[in-house]
Amino acid sequence: MNKFSIGVDLGGTNLRIAAVDEQGALVEKVTLGTKVSRGRDHVIADMCDAIQRMSDKFKDTAPMQGIGVGVPGIIDMQTGLVRESPNLPDWVDYPARAAIEQRLKTVVILENDANVAALGEKWLGAAKDFSDMAMLTLGTGVGGGLVLGGAIWRGANGMAAEFGHTTVEPEGQLCGCGNHGCLEAYASATAIVRMAREAIVKNSGCALASAANSDPEFSAKSIYNLAIQGDEDARQIFRYVGRCLGIVLSTMVNSLNLPIYVIGGGVSSAWEAFSPSIFEELRRRSLVYAATAPHDDSVGNHGASANVEAGPGQKTIITRALLGSDAGLYGAARLPMITEARR
Amino acid sequence: MNKFSIGVDLGGTNLRIAAVDEQGALVEKVTLGTKVSRGRDHVIADMCDAIQRMSDKFKDTAPMQGIGVGVPGIIDMQTGLVRESPNLPDWVDYPARAAIEQRLKTVVILENDANVAALGEKWLGAAKDFSDMAMLTLGTGVGGGLVLGGAIWRGANGMAAEFGHTTVEPEGQLCGCGNHGCLEAYASATAIVRMAREAIVKNSGCALASAANSDPEFSAKSIYNLAIQGDEDARQIFRYVGRCLGIVLSTMVNSLNLPIYVIGGGVSSAWEAFSPSIFEELRRRSLVYAATAPHDDSVGNHGASANVEAGPGQKTIITRALLGSDAGLYGAARLPMITEARR
Repeated sequence: MNKFSIGVDLGGTNLRIAAVDEQGALVEKVTLGTKVSRGRDHVIADMCDAIQRMSDKFKDTAPMQGIGVGVPGIIDMQTGLVRESPNLPDWVDYPARAAIEQRLKTVVILENDANVAALGEKWLGAAKDFSDMAMLTLGTGVGGGLVLGGAIWRGANGMAAEFGHTTVEPEGQLCGCGNHGCLEAYASATAIVRMAREAIVKNSGCALASAANSDPEFSAKSIYNLAIQGDEDARQIFRYVGRCLGIVLSTMVNSLNLPIYVIGGGVSSAWEAFSPSIFEELRRRSLVYAATAPHDDSVGNHGASANVEAGPGQKTIITRALLGSDAGLYGAARLPMITEARR
Repeated sequence: MNKFSIGVDLGGTNLRIAAVDEQGALVEKVTLGTKVSRGRDHVIADMCDAIQRMSDKFKDTAPMQGIGVGVPGIIDMQTGLVRESPNLPDWVDYPARAAIEQRLKTVVILENDANVAALGEKWLGAAKDFSDMAMLTLGTGVGGGLVLGGAIWRGANGMAAEFGHTTVEPEGQLCGCGNHGCLEAYASATAIVRMAREAIVKNSGCALASAANSDPEFSAKSIYNLAIQGDEDARQIFRYVGRCLGIVLSTMVNSLNLPIYVIGGGVSSAWEAFSPSIFEELRRRSLVYAATAPHDDSVGNHGASANVEAGPGQKTIITRALLGSDAGLYGAARLPMITEARR
């Protein structure tokens, strides 16, 4: 390899560190548990030790370009402060960047995890031939990332791309953010389980009820399993997920007219169950999509996106993410390759 | 003046042509009627004659930088074709740019009218200290313009910034675009009159009914006049307009995190009647807005925007347009100053 950089994906459960070379080849990856309960200093120490070991291991092989860290929270890019993080409760106004840099004695780049996942899919994944793209990450919540002109679009305060908090139903379900009817309240794993429990209350004899009773880890995945077995209640839930995603994607297409929108995160495994409703809504609600849709809506999903060139005849592609949970790791490693060093 | 350029605002009713210098001073303006019924060739001939006269008049005074034309329709920027225009019915796949250039024997820049209005407000109006901004133009329909990094954001197919077709009520009012519940179906002048007529059907004894009966030109303005006189039905309509605008602005703030959003067009004269509901919705529906709102929501409206600098502490400003119906004229004149000449 010519050069490499180190990417860190700091999640509420797993802490993953990888060395990635300039061409995007994964040189080495380690996965540790994030020991949230031991406090932030402990998490930072674990992370820095692992980074140091990896950096030492390759330092005689090739020059290191830098270190990028994806953090699940709101980050003040100027100061390197993590303002808040739902999965890291004690990271409130925490000078995480300074803490890491002090231990490693080198500069690091912090970035929001959803932005980093978008950057990963843009570099090596579903959007790799595009310089403008947006990503929705359907997990416990719904994260968003936006890349314009090849760079993460952070907005005036580093708070852009909160697509998960687009209002879908103005008087709908209360969201964690305080608003009613956010996309996150209908298209996250949490929302899918909630909608299943609502269906069980209405009909305690349904297959969802049996599954919930027999499965102590009743989850969005359990509900998807029922859907692929043909259970109508479970299928209905995923159709509703697709409808809400379709409404938000229509707004994104109408507003930004990007060539590609990527859907990732754990819930995207249920693509077959929810994506038909996405395309139905898009054709109903977006003249821009109707005018630019590929002949087969899901064409991007079969690797054809690379054949579509930018220009007046540019197609609008809505597709699944390709890198799975590694998107954030690749994106974090990409940060030092495209970011100018801080003075 | 050092240099000047010519801006054209081609509307369905008026055709306006202005010479504007580099500093944004209006040197001369003429207003003609758009003779739509005589056909597109006649309209183009009128426009080119007026441009030629104005260009001849100033050509010995200062060098001309170019000609920009704002057109109310979808334009293919590559070919200069007007794909369609609701207000110019015979402009379907019409090579307008070629037609103009042939007559004038020089290069012109065509641009969508809502984009041009946004560019005007960015150059000389409410957003003049910002390089990133969005604009909503509330007229017969609801137009949108987006400026990122000082340039119009056109998207992959030149169809971006259709904020008027954001879904507000998923199963709501049918919109001209075929979707249900678009912003345009609730916040345009047309929608305001429709909502008033709906109120009249419910209560034929209301003040709106008397106004509609006595005023042959019963319009959004008539309804606003009732609202400022305190009529509750009329006020209710404008509160609903503000609610829908607030929902869409929340989505825009959450997605783009721009420093400033400008509301223009004829309906924006009713700012006092609808803006309180905008700010109410924004605070409810956007954590980004809640975290970045000025102490007084409408601060931008009092010329204070110039004092707010970009950066981590950037405030989010929602404000009225300042240039009125001249925004498009200034924006069109600005086009040749910031666009590289076509080869």
